Amino acid sequence: MTDAATNMRLKLPITCFILEIILIILFGTLVQYDHETDAKQWHNQSHEDYENDFYFRYPSFQDVHVMIFIGFGFLMTFLQRYGFSSVGFNFLIAAFALQWATLMQGFFHGLHGGKIHIGVESMINADFCTGSVLISFGAVLGKTSPVQLLVMAMFEVTLFAVNEFILLSILGTRDAGGSMTIHTFGAYFGLMVTRVLYRPNLDKSKHRNCSVYHSDLFAMIGTIYLWMFWPSFNSAITAHGDDQHRTAMNTYYSLAACTLSTYGMSALTAHDGKLDMVHIQNAALAGGVAVGTAGEMMLTPFGSMIVGFLAGVISVLGFKYLSPILEDKLKIQDTCGVHNLHGMPGVLGAIVGAVTAALASTDVYGGGLSDVFPDVASGDVTATKQGGIQAASLAVTLGIALLGGLIVGFILKLPIFGAPPDTICFEDSIYWEVPGEEEHHDGQLTTVRTEESEKLNS
Amino acid sequence: MTDAATNMRLKLPITCFILEIILIILFGTLVQYDHETDAKQWHNQSHEDYENDFYFRYPSFQDVHVMIFIGFGFLMTFLQRYGFSSVGFNFLIAAFALQWATLMQGFFHGLHGGKIHIGVESMINADFCTGSVLISFGAVLGKTSPVQLLVMAMFEVTLFAVNEFILLSILGTRDAGGSMTIHTFGAYFGLMVTRVLYRPNLDKSKHRNCSVYHSDLFAMIGTIYLWMFWPSFNSAITAHGDDQHRTAMNTYYSLAACTLSTYGMSALTAHDGKLDMVHIQNAALAGGVAVGTAGEMMLTPFGSMIVGFLAGVISVLGFKYLSPILEDKLKIQDTCGVHNLHGMPGVLGAIVGAVTAALASTDVYGGGLSDVFPDVASGDVTATKQGGIQAASLAVTLGIALLGGLIVGFILKLPIFGAPPDTICFEDSIYWEVPGEEEHHDGQLTTVRTEESEKLNS
Amino acid sequence: MTDAATNMRLKLPITCFILEIILIILFGTLVQYDHETDAKQWHNQSHEDYENDFYFRYPSFQDVHVMIFIGFGFLMTFLQRYGFSSVGFNFLIAAFALQWATLMQGFFHGLHGGKIHIGVESMINADFCTGSVLISFGAVLGKTSPVQLLVMAMFEVTLFAVNEFILLSILGTRDAGGSMTIHTFGAYFGLMVTRVLYRPNLDKSKHRNCSVYHSDLFAMIGTIYLWMFWPSFNSAITAHGDDQHRTAMNTYYSLAACTLSTYGMSALTAHDGKLDMVHIQNAALAGGVAVGTAGEMMLTPFGSMIVGFLAGVISVLGFKYLSPILEDKLKIQDTCGVHNLHGMPGVLGAIVGAVTAALASTDVYGGGLSDVFPDVASGDVTATKQGGIQAASLAVTLGIALLGGLIVGFILKLPIFGAPPDTICFEDSIYWEVPGEEEHHDGQLTTVRTEESEKLNS
Repeated sequence: MTDAATNMRLKLPITCFILEIILIILFGTLVQYDHETDAKQWHNQSHEDYENDFYFRYPSFQDVHVMIFIGFGFLMTFLQRYGFSSVGFNFLIAAFALQWATLMQGFFHGLHGGKIHIGVESMINADFCTGSVLISFGAVLGKTSPVQLLVMAMFEVTLFAVNEFILLSILGTRDAGGSMTIHTFGAYFGLMVTRVLYRPNLDKSKHRNCSVYHSDLFAMIGTIYLWMFWPSFNSAITAHGDDQHRTAMNTYYSLAACTLSTYGMSALTAHDGKLDMVHIQNAALAGGVAVGTAGEMMLTPFGSMIVGFLAGVISVLGFKYLSPILEDKLKIQDTCGVHNLHGMPGVLGAIVGAVTAALASTDVYGGGLSDVFPDVASGDVTATKQGGIQAASLAVTLGIALLGGLIVGFILKLPIFGAPPDTICFEDSIYWEVPGEEEHHDGQLTTVRTEESEKLNS
Repeated sequence: MTDAATNMRLKLPITCFILEIILIILFGTLVQYDHETDAKQWHNQSHEDYENDFYFRYPSFQDVHVMIFIGFGFLMTFLQRYGFSSVGFNFLIAAFALQWATLMQGFFHGLHGGKIHIGVESMINADFCTGSVLISFGAVLGKTSPVQLLVMAMFEVTLFAVNEFILLSILGTRDAGGSMTIHTFGAYFGLMVTRVLYRPNLDKSKHRNCSVYHSDLFAMIGTIYLWMFWPSFNSAITAHGDDQHRTAMNTYYSLAACTLSTYGMSALTAHDGKLDMVHIQNAALAGGVAVGTAGEMMLTPFGSMIVGFLAGVISVLGFKYLSPILEDKLKIQDTCGVHNLHGMPGVLGAIVGAVTAALASTDVYGGGLSDVFPDVASGDVTATKQGGIQAASLAVTLGIALLGGLIVGFILKLPIFGAPPDTICFEDSIYWEVPGEEEHHDGQLTTVRTEESEKLNS
Repeated sequence: MTDAATNMRLKLPITCFILEIILIILFGTLVQYDHETDAKQWHNQSHEDYENDFYFRYPSFQDVHVMIFIGFGFLMTFLQRYGFSSVGFNFLIAAFALQWATLMQGFFHGLHGGKIHIGVESMINADFCTGSVLISFGAVLGKTSPVQLLVMAMFEVTLFAVNEFILLSILGTRDAGGSMTIHTFGAYFGLMVTRVLYRPNLDKSKHRNCSVYHSDLFAMIGTIYLWMFWPSFNSAITAHGDDQHRTAMNTYYSLAACTLSTYGMSALTAHDGKLDMVHIQNAALAGGVAVGTAGEMMLTPFGSMIVGFLAGVISVLGFKYLSPILEDKLKIQDTCGVHNLHGMPGVLGAIVGAVTAALASTDVYGGGLSDVFPDVASGDVTATKQGGIQAASLAVTLGIALLGGLIVGFILKLPIFGAPPDTICFEDSIYWEVPGEEEHHDGQLTTVRTEESEKLNS
């Protein structure tokens, strides 16, 4: 396949080099060490070394980093012939997005004398924003070129930062684990993009849009890492002390409960009473999404488990009954089912957060109220009003995500980005040099290439 | 295969939902944040944030978490057609067990005004208890339904908590890394269960009870993660400061020595002087098991290396010579060889711990004696007596494990739990929707299902 | 294949047992807990528990540990029939090397009353030294027996410690992330060894010296873990506080920039505009190597990104154009291309470090200068001189690596070590019992062995 349209010989290098050079120039002019990473500033002040934010957040950062690069990357390797692209494009767009997010978030979170100050917290935030882009990637998986993905990442990171700024800085919303800012935003943005990029003839690639035995095991590496480290994700940027501790614990129990409801629902709904790997790989994670907002609050393990349980139920039901409807009626081809893993559980998480916030009181939080709800503690808003703000934030997020996805979707339709034809979606060999498979039939170890991949490569 | 007996359509959902609902109700009535996770309590006291136990233990907790879900889960994927079940049932029963363990351990470790208080340390303990269940899972791997496994987990967690309570709270035993409470208990419990579940016609599934090339590589992911994070496992709940530090280091050297003796013994005993993956995947870990009790003591790296070296030797010898005898003579069908990885090394660890405890003195431990042996430091018992207590604890553990396994084994024999027939053990497709394998023979990429899996699915 | 020469029945056990027994004896006579792992010493002094170095470095240590055992181990599984050996020999020689490195580095870093004192920092240093050995392993991958590898590790660790002593202790060089001591040393040592072991008839095994689809995915596990945890690697032994924080952040941005230049260069240079997995798996990591020396300095994210960008470019160019020349003209058969990932980027890192050091000033570093450049802060040398020392250190490192590799290469040529014949390189079944592959052709699940592996096993 030497189709000029999908050939990346020049398109990808030009895109990568221009983007990276722009990033380097902007970092050179705008970015500085913050007072915890700058040698002079740190030593100018009186600190003990263990007070450096590095020791409070770096282990959580590394867990989040694993979720972004291994978790998302391998979760998407379930497709039989799209493993290179799943891990590889995930790697590429994440490496770009985290740099761009540093600039966009730094710009909106407040400049210091015209400069963006960075440290471990900004690194976590950049990874969070990247996570949102990877959720959208899940919706369009298999149907986009790497250049399209980089362009999508560029716009999505920007809109993410705008939405995050409106929520966290203007409205005073609380959303430490990003049920709204990350999951709802990423899911509905991606769903709208894939709607605009609707391919009526995608069934020509249907035979590749499924898993094989080993690809499902690779995907489980992604699933399990996401599941294990979600407590670190939700607690990574909460306040030091009891807040990080409590958030991690709430998430731990939510996920455990979600896993049991996922297995139960999968056996109940799947073909012949057998478990469906798609449910296990995805719905078991919905419990982490659904306590993204309320996890730092005094939700209690009891409350977390109820939320996790419900998230697993609606996520499996979504995969089983809603996804086919979305595809048939609304023409939304959602490859990974991000609506079921990030969309609906994200909305659930926003609602749970609003309710939990509305119930906050000094009676329950004591002196810790100012960590979780600074505006309530300061008397600026009532708890009820905070709950209302949380609910309004969901609407804002949905609006920006859907509108943004609409516009970006049309941009990505431009024929210059090298999207694959309908007949060769979900196929690595269009963008990668793919080795053959080992074969043993005639008793001799030989590496063969399939006729199809020969054809694609010739 | 629509055999009503193994069909999980109703059995698994009912089990999962009932168990989770009971858990949620009990959490709602019994469980509270401890003073380090509760917003009000933490802020009521004068603390620095970095004094929160979260920062001392959460990185270790996450390492333990990886061992439980990735380590155990992937270690068991070595079987050629049981990868979904290995990772997937591991995931299910671990998610259940950690919730149930929180309640059982909380109940026995002491209620606070009728309530169980939880934080990162209880999370680690819950994961530890889960590890014990997963060891037993290794013994029955491939021969049990998910419902049987959940039932086994429920009983085993309960008995684990009883045994742990007797050892740690009544006898005053020291066992930070769980040579006795986790490994010996889990192994002998599981061995007794598999003995009771003995299948005389298991050789009908013999052709599936072996590995293929890629499944052995997946299993190595489990092995290496267990190996790397074992220092965190053994040190996760030791006292802060030098104790965690020392325990991690002792374990590191024990494992390194164990690896060399494992490779040596494998080449010496295996077919034709070639290394056997079974030994590498398992015996190289025995060094971590064997310093589970003494790792926190002043065992020295020198002592740790001797223990690790011996553990590797006996573990390989067990796989090579003892396992076949156990199967032929005692009718113990131990799928993963847990007797060699957890059983004998656990007993060795208990003995090493007893000896090391008996040699403890203020001369060696200084002011640190109260961290490691509080009863010796307080003068309640002599070091010699502490050694005797340790040895007695091994006997108690063996007794409870064997008796418990006997009873639970008979419970699991009830025909209502959907165990697989002898002809279809070690086979994913009985409980999972299994995709076909990619095939390229006629030059066309097609997904095929094997005749057997067709038959199973029809 | 029962060729006596490659049979490991006695050679490997004898080597493992003798080495381990020597290690145990030397640990027994020479090694002691340091004051942070010794119960008595720690409790003799007035400390808070959180001041123990364990809490500053153990999370980083575990990340480094993952890089050594999962990162290096799986990165090398890209070969189609060498996965057992890649992960398994990596495991064996790393477990040996870290013990031996503890002794060699302890000896050179300074004895305390004739004793080596160890703790988490020495564990990190031992893992670092092990990394160097594994880089050399990459150069000879597929062409050496496990006994040869253990012998190589023994000599290389010793020479590593000598070189490290000359640089860090005599010259006062700064090299926290080991651009010189680890990467340059390991690469050029390994390249010289493989040069001496040149096999003119290696093309007889050429058909095995390539990847298959799944082996490339396994290798990506290694790549992504190395990439994610490199910030921990470079910051693991820098000074507490801003230094660890800054080093991690510089490395994070260097790697991100490197990833974009790698993808761009790969598409630009590879066949038909398609991405080449070899580049992605390797060159994307060069950014971590290249900021190994300067990462702890005030390089700024801007500087780090430029360095990372360049590292990616030269690494891809090396794979594409230089490696074939090295093989054809200089007879250097570099299996993994370590010259492109560790060699050239290591040299680049040394140069960047020298330049950055020469530009150091109190103006920029303030009170932090004594952390990064103690000799400059104390006035012993000027910044310019420090830069010169850094440059000279590169020359010293190259000299010791090349001379050491030459000598060790000739030692490894001794016919007693059981090297594989030219016809059976890159093949697991010469040293491992290899299971067959699952086959489904006649609709029946059967495990087959290839004729070749039958032949090898017979």
